[in-house]
Parts: sequence; structure tokens; C-alpha cells
Amino acid sequence: MEVLKVSARSRSTAVAGAIAGVVRETGRAEVQAIGAGAVNQATKAVAIARSYLALDGIDVVCIPSFTDVMIGDQERTAIKLTVEPR
Amino acid sequence: MEVLKVSARSRSTAVAGAIAGVVRETGRAEVQAIGAGAVNQATKAVAIARSYLALDGIDVVCIPSFTDVMIGDQERTAIKLTVEPR
Repeated sequence: MEVLKVSARSRSTAVAGAIAGVVRETGRAEVQAIGAGAVNQATKAVAIARSYLALDGIDVVCIPSFTDVMIGDQERTAIKLTVEPR
Repeated sequence: MEVLKVSARSRSTAVAGAIAGVVRETGRAEVQAIGAGAVNQATKAVAIARSYLALDGIDVVCIPSFTDVMIGDQERTAIKLTVEPR
């Protein structure tokens, strides 16, 4: 499954559009963010994506979890937001 | 309904315990955060609360939305995370 990687510089509306597109196509989306700025953009993007998908009659919820990812040779803890229909 | 207000300096485990307690007592919880640091702590707290509540057989999801709040005489946009059983 494709993971949408969000940074602190990602535009939340652009990420929201990507989330909505992936949910429409595959039924669910995974968003990954490392650091406070990125988690903030990702969370805002899910809130916006909810309004986009509501227009299609799709009511999504968000399931946050921790996940370890390798950045170069360093292990970092990322926040993963799984977006799927309620 | 009581709103759990989270700041950038809130400990995510303490907020998680509060979320789990409110969900156990009332069935759902609302968490409010303003700013990237606070949204990050709130999102991590929900991820941790999920694991606490899973031990009680309660599977919660998170519904992020925007909400306007007054801080003194200034209007600010907060992120509200509604935590409720799937």
C-alpha cells in the first residue's frame, strides 16, 4: 500500500486531496509524518479530507499509531495516520 | 461535554490517560489543541490512549476537525480530535 509522506512544509489542502483520492480509489489511505510540524500538517489534512469525502458520502475516521522508519541509517519514530471509512 | 485542552508542553502519556478515563466514563472524549506542538502531543496521546483502551476491549478512532475558539479577545483556529468507539 502506498504511504503518503507528509513534511512540515507540505500544504495541508494538497495532502487532503491526495488522501481523498487514495481513499476513493482503494478504500483507505496511510499518512506518515515525523516531527511536530509534519504531524500538524497531516492531522489538518485529514480534517480537510473528511470534508472532501463527505461530499461523496464517505465518512472517514483516523487511526493514529506509532511506527519506526529508517531515514538513511537512523531509526526514527513516525506517526502513522490510517484513514478509512467508519 | 468536557474538553481536554492540550498544549505543546503537555505530556502525551498523561493526556492519553485522561482520554482513556473520559472514554471509559462517558463513551467519548474531545481533545483540543492550538499550534503544531500541541497538535503533535494530542495526536500522540490518542495513539497511546488507543493502546490503553484496547486492553479494555474498546477500539477507538479519532475524528479531526477545525473549531474556532476565543483566547482572550482573539479568535484562534484549534484542532479538535473527537475520540470515540469505532
